[in-house]
Amino acid sequence: MSRAFAALLLLIAAATAPPTPPVGFKPDRAKWQLDYERRLLALPRPEECDALLRELTRAPHLAGTDGGRRVADFVAAEFRKAGLKVETPTYDVLLSYPKSASLTIVGEPEVRLARSEEAIASDADSAIGPTSLPWNAYAPSADVSAEVVYVNHGAAEDYDRLARMGVDVRGKIALARYFGGYRGGKSLEGEKRGVAAILVYSDPREDGWFQGPVYPEGPWGPASHVQRGANVYDFLVPGDPLTPGWPSTASARRIPESESTILPKLPMMPLSARDAAELLRRLRGPAVPTEWQGVAIADTYRIGPGPVRVRLQVENTRERRTIRNVIGVLEGTDARAQKVILSNHHDAWVYGAVDPSSGTATMIALARALGRLAREGLRPRRTIVFGEWDAEEYTLTGSTEWGEEHESDLIRDAVVCINVDASTSGRDFSASASPTLAAVIREAAGIVPDPGAPGKTVADSWREHAGAKNVRSYASGERTGDELPIAILGSGSDYTVFFNRLGIASMDILFDGPYGVYHSVYDSYGWMSRHGDPGFRYHAAMARLAGLLALRFANADLLPFDPSAYGREIATYAKDLAAAPAGRPYAGDLARLSAAAERWATEAKATRDAVAADLASGRADAGRLRGVNEWLLGLERAVSDSAGLPGRPWFRHLIYAPLPSYAAETLPAIREAGVRGDAAAARAEILRLESRLERAAEEARKLR
Amino acid sequence: MSRAFAALLLLIAAATAPPTPPVGFKPDRAKWQLDYERRLLALPRPEECDALLRELTRAPHLAGTDGGRRVADFVAAEFRKAGLKVETPTYDVLLSYPKSASLTIVGEPEVRLARSEEAIASDADSAIGPTSLPWNAYAPSADVSAEVVYVNHGAAEDYDRLARMGVDVRGKIALARYFGGYRGGKSLEGEKRGVAAILVYSDPREDGWFQGPVYPEGPWGPASHVQRGANVYDFLVPGDPLTPGWPSTASARRIPESESTILPKLPMMPLSARDAAELLRRLRGPAVPTEWQGVAIADTYRIGPGPVRVRLQVENTRERRTIRNVIGVLEGTDARAQKVILSNHHDAWVYGAVDPSSGTATMIALARALGRLAREGLRPRRTIVFGEWDAEEYTLTGSTEWGEEHESDLIRDAVVCINVDASTSGRDFSASASPTLAAVIREAAGIVPDPGAPGKTVADSWREHAGAKNVRSYASGERTGDELPIAILGSGSDYTVFFNRLGIASMDILFDGPYGVYHSVYDSYGWMSRHGDPGFRYHAAMARLAGLLALRFANADLLPFDPSAYGREIATYAKDLAAAPAGRPYAGDLARLSAAAERWATEAKATRDAVAADLASGRADAGRLRGVNEWLLGLERAVSDSAGLPGRPWFRHLIYAPLPSYAAETLPAIREAGVRGDAAAARAEILRLESRLERAAEEARKLR
Repeated sequence: MSRAFAALLLLIAAATAPPTPPVGFKPDRAKWQLDYERRLLALPRPEECDALLRELTRAPHLAGTDGGRRVADFVAAEFRKAGLKVETPTYDVLLSYPKSASLTIVGEPEVRLARSEEAIASDADSAIGPTSLPWNAYAPSADVSAEVVYVNHGAAEDYDRLARMGVDVRGKIALARYFGGYRGGKSLEGEKRGVAAILVYSDPREDGWFQGPVYPEGPWGPASHVQRGANVYDFLVPGDPLTPGWPSTASARRIPESESTILPKLPMMPLSARDAAELLRRLRGPAVPTEWQGVAIADTYRIGPGPVRVRLQVENTRERRTIRNVIGVLEGTDARAQKVILSNHHDAWVYGAVDPSSGTATMIALARALGRLAREGLRPRRTIVFGEWDAEEYTLTGSTEWGEEHESDLIRDAVVCINVDASTSGRDFSASASPTLAAVIREAAGIVPDPGAPGKTVADSWREHAGAKNVRSYASGERTGDELPIAILGSGSDYTVFFNRLGIASMDILFDGPYGVYHSVYDSYGWMSRHGDPGFRYHAAMARLAGLLALRFANADLLPFDPSAYGREIATYAKDLAAAPAGRPYAGDLARLSAAAERWATEAKATRDAVAADLASGRADAGRLRGVNEWLLGLERAVSDSAGLPGRPWFRHLIYAPLPSYAAETLPAIREAGVRGDAAAARAEILRLESRLERAAEEARKLR
Repeated sequence: MSRAFAALLLLIAAATAPPTPPVGFKPDRAKWQLDYERRLLALPRPEECDALLRELTRAPHLAGTDGGRRVADFVAAEFRKAGLKVETPTYDVLLSYPKSASLTIVGEPEVRLARSEEAIASDADSAIGPTSLPWNAYAPSADVSAEVVYVNHGAAEDYDRLARMGVDVRGKIALARYFGGYRGGKSLEGEKRGVAAILVYSDPREDGWFQGPVYPEGPWGPASHVQRGANVYDFLVPGDPLTPGWPSTASARRIPESESTILPKLPMMPLSARDAAELLRRLRGPAVPTEWQGVAIADTYRIGPGPVRVRLQVENTRERRTIRNVIGVLEGTDARAQKVILSNHHDAWVYGAVDPSSGTATMIALARALGRLAREGLRPRRTIVFGEWDAEEYTLTGSTEWGEEHESDLIRDAVVCINVDASTSGRDFSASASPTLAAVIREAAGIVPDPGAPGKTVADSWREHAGAKNVRSYASGERTGDELPIAILGSGSDYTVFFNRLGIASMDILFDGPYGVYHSVYDSYGWMSRHGDPGFRYHAAMARLAGLLALRFANADLLPFDPSAYGREIATYAKDLAAAPAGRPYAGDLARLSAAAERWATEAKATRDAVAADLASGRADAGRLRGVNEWLLGLERAVSDSAGLPGRPWFRHLIYAPLPSYAAETLPAIREAGVRGDAAAARAEILRLESRLERAAEEARKLR
């Protein structure tokens, strides 16, 4: 049989055959599990997701406002109706709100920018422009006048290039494009370079008509759309800026604002392409390098500085307010202390139809389904916890405070974190995850039907679009055959406290698509129902997929982690780093590290295979399974260290850490020491990880 | 020795060592040749090229005008001063001139387009806008009013897509982007689809600020630049439309205009981006497909049709005028009947600093150098002919008429055609050629120093930029290691009559670069001295390179063709075609064709190697060499057939033919029959070529 023919048969089998027995279940329990899954998959309905999203997006629901409170209460009520036990823990945290925003081009006549997003006749929700200011949360208030200078994405290499061109940016107001990094990173770099303020705008080259038709005609951002967002350095430490590392309970100790390392010093304001065009049109001086050219004006971009001069007047508050997580609990029947966490936030910059309400609608639909099955007698063995977090948009605040509050319990009991943020903005399934979770995600995607492709599963379509776009798996960047690509976890959503701090295996999953209205007024029910998910079928599919994954972890006799994946991945990272300039001096040490990682992979695989064989033949007793499950559940902890990373001890994960962008780096402590050229630190960090890998390998070996 | 190290040594050797003995010379003649080459390479000077270009571009020199006559006389005088024998054969041919050009948007208020190119203060030559109308030669006069419809590049697939979208283009005025095909192809497709007229414009996405800074600041086209050019179907038959296939001598028979197959029926006018923006801004209807989006306006492009309505009023003449080639001859000492042809045209749409005057300056500098060496006693063995053609811009007219007039002499005596059209618009060497010429071009490029890269040869830099841009060799599209890439010959310059009709091995060489002012007023001395070739060093380098190639062919004992290259290439084309839908039904026949081609390659190589060994050991007598040289010189004729291609018998080459674009197709007769699904014709065409290849292989074998 040819390979192509065999692959075809597999595809047909995946699309039409009954689900194969799930991995990690005793033969006698597999049938019960399959029935449970089958009944779950039948429940989430597109129509209910539609109605839920309409309700969630009825009004803006910014954290700490009445609108935010309304949505939290709605979610809590829905969870209660679904039969969950509900708690609504609150925290007092530093948030930020806009009071005024003005930007004028100085001169005769004066030109007023910072204009509202335009109302769109066919989407009544869009008509609130004037009440929703263009602002970046936490950016300090300011009244500053200066010449404008174009700094491309505002990244370090952009400022380096300007310096080589002889352009002095100090004291100027930098005009930076969005994309090419997180806005907090742009602000921090701007601080270092001595600019007076940053205007960050949406260039249509990445984020507007150049990509395709704009809303309401298409999914891309209209010329007046503004990308709001926090300006905060939460890649150093997330959560409430006044309680770095501990929970913001009412009585908690708080540091003064001035001691926070994550609050920006630079005034910052987001601009629409329409506003930015007025500045770009008036810049003179050298032409930009070709890669810096955008399309907000139909002409060569120029660096400046000036002659255009602007006055930026911003008044933003920083104030303590109360935020409210909604925790819904479906108690397990058996190993009830162990918790499978389903994670999503409920606060939004404006309506947040995609971000995060698509995820919230998905979670409510799933809670209803699991609640109904529980009433019908099907309950999970382990406990399933729905975490609906508040103030994610600020500094991942709600999840971080909760994780910090329940740190020791979670380290002991949490099995996995299944995060959906924006669960649906299109049809292309996308996943980031701990390496140990890749196999179970691929397996689940092979079971859930793709609602837009008759006869195909989510995995089939995933393979197609990933192949077409050449999406690559993990940081090693290798694309192995038609493997379904899974990315490493960056930052920017609520898995961060679970994954990077507490060492809990995590995943972030979504149905992706062209999403040009991010953090703007136009991220509305109208956008979603026309472009993001007309018919709301992918909302329902995500409820099925997240539910299936939760049930696998909640009910498995042998937890469905792939224990050898981590070692294999780490070995690759070590080899890649040894080939890079930062790692080359330590190639010998890294080779040893890589060998230790491979040893861990080998031992872990042998142990897992042995236990799986015992399980299949009925020889695995409960005590042994409990021990092995604790080992599996602890794999992520094995590569975390409570001492944390040098310079940012809140982050404890030794394999991944967020960069000042939305991305992540691998082997952060080793890599950063290498980049600094600090040989002693690099060797010490290699040794720290190597010793943990050796111990992990030994632990795996002993379990056989 | 590592491969990388060996490569480094080779590079150093190429850049610094004395030239290695040229291939194809008897040991005792090699030294004389090297001395000849060394003295030639020392002569062309940048300053003389600068002065020549200034003189050539002093005024517009359109074919058939006083300006054109002035330049022809100048070239003839320069050739005479250089010591060449000069003839100036004239032909009476159908040309075309603009009398008026008007385009208005109908409405209140009326908007007048078809505006002149803007004068640039720092380039006095640019101030002639109003006297140089936007026009496409041969396009019929018209007064037509209709709605506008956007048709992307105006290619067949674009109209197909519009049809699928339900857009009726009939009777509308099509607005098409330049690029994605030759303007004649756009016109022919528009005729087929029933549009009323075509406006063809320069979108800044390909041809303006989006690519980089515009003239005078950078090399790209300003918003007002207009690409003139002929609208004529010379991919069917080039040359004077009234004498298809025979020379336009005074007494020649002429067909009526109405019988010409190459004159367009569609009114056509070129537009600047600035003018096109006024139309794009006013189109409504569906948004364009993403790939169709340009950047002439900062908004989503729309298809229309309308509501914008324009009135196009064009008056162009078609009239017989006299054109004047300039033929300069440096007679050979020995095999003087055999001719090495150096080819370039001297007419231009406006100033034509790049196209073609850079080539003309190069040719005059080379004529002076060869003339001086002749006076000093170094004369070529074979005759060198400089052909400076008139009216290339119309239908390759001057070269075609001359080639048709001297057809039988040329088929017998012409050795090679070395064509430079726009010889210099940058620093990146680029070559298209007969496969048999690849080796000698690469060899010559390895000898001439790159004037902009100290210590490097043209070949070194060629390898670098081709590697960086991933330029690929030949039609097979394979990039083999770091082989220097050579393209197949398309059409659009004066080698066409020599190569595609007379079966003379040809090459087209240039130093390429960002050239955004093609066929516009801004293709001026100012543009060249600022952007194309500041210091005119690449003009001089091209004189050296073309001269070196001419001397190799003029003086070799054994002509430096690679006789096995054709067979290898044809075998690849046959395999590629067998794998394509058009060729798959004939895979068996094509496999036989491919085998015949490989046999030819094998036999030819064996013969060439045997002769080369005889040459090196002094055993090759004059008679044997004469026979072998005739064989080599006839290789290109072996794959030409005087019966021509089905439907366009003027084209006789069986391996390549121009497409209605600037590109070429391989195995045209077979491929076109395959596309039509005409199995009998496809098999007959395969057989026609196969039998010629078998005969060629046999001829090669017999020579051993």
